[in-house]
Amino acid sequence: MEIAFEKTGGLVPAIIQDEASGDVLMLGFMNAESFALTQRDGEVVFFSRSRNKLWKKGESSGHLLNVREIRIDCDADALLIRVNPVGPGVCHEGYRSCFFRSLNHEGAPRIIDEQTFSPDAIYTSKNQQLTHEPE
Amino acid sequence: MEIAFEKTGGLVPAIIQDEASGDVLMLGFMNAESFALTQRDGEVVFFSRSRNKLWKKGESSGHLLNVREIRIDCDADALLIRVNPVGPGVCHEGYRSCFFRSLNHEGAPRIIDEQTFSPDAIYTSKNQQLTHEPE
Repeated sequence: MEIAFEKTGGLVPAIIQDEASGDVLMLGFMNAESFALTQRDGEVVFFSRSRNKLWKKGESSGHLLNVREIRIDCDADALLIRVNPVGPGVCHEGYRSCFFRSLNHEGAPRIIDEQTFSPDAIYTSKNQQLTHEPE
Repeated sequence: MEIAFEKTGGLVPAIIQDEASGDVLMLGFMNAESFALTQRDGEVVFFSRSRNKLWKKGESSGHLLNVREIRIDCDADALLIRVNPVGPGVCHEGYRSCFFRSLNHEGAPRIIDEQTFSPDAIYTSKNQQLTHEPE
């Protein structure tokens, strides 16, 4: 089945969902190469828009995302990747999910999760540039 | 809290998750105006990239998405909207979720859900152009 990379300028959004809990952990983008690597190796590889290169999630933190299932939407231009996450969280701010804030009616954020790890201990200055930006 | 519309060309991806089941139902895009309408009225409004205009989900099918909670990610460039969906499904192909196909290791799709409604009965030729394309 062809994924509609061309329709969207080469990148499709990939939703990362924890298979066990159903929680949505993060969203990244994939190009054809990162998708092929993800499928081949069973570990999530994104394409970083800000760094303009492949980005294996967990390459420096160790918090890899083991692929359990890949789903595709009706238009073939969005992916839902169900994973078994390695480690205490995917977010560079120390949370299990990058969606750790809720917005109220005025758009004010409120933190709704608890930190599960200290980002300082994981993302050292040496490798911060590799992982600080989720994209 | 500012959503990073500008960083991404005016549009951010919005993941739609069923609050009750945790299932991911679809992914759309929002611009600032569609986000404001979604927040104001409590019903999901996307921005259609293919039609280049606002698109209220369910405007013709009646399958509205009632907003229960809006979450934002660490970079403020992706939204997770937890909803109570009206009707039997969000997908124009007659499924509860647009992610009704799983890909195997060779990329071949397999339908993993059952149809919950007949799209022909909902999307008549008259309004098909409004709703056929999820985007």
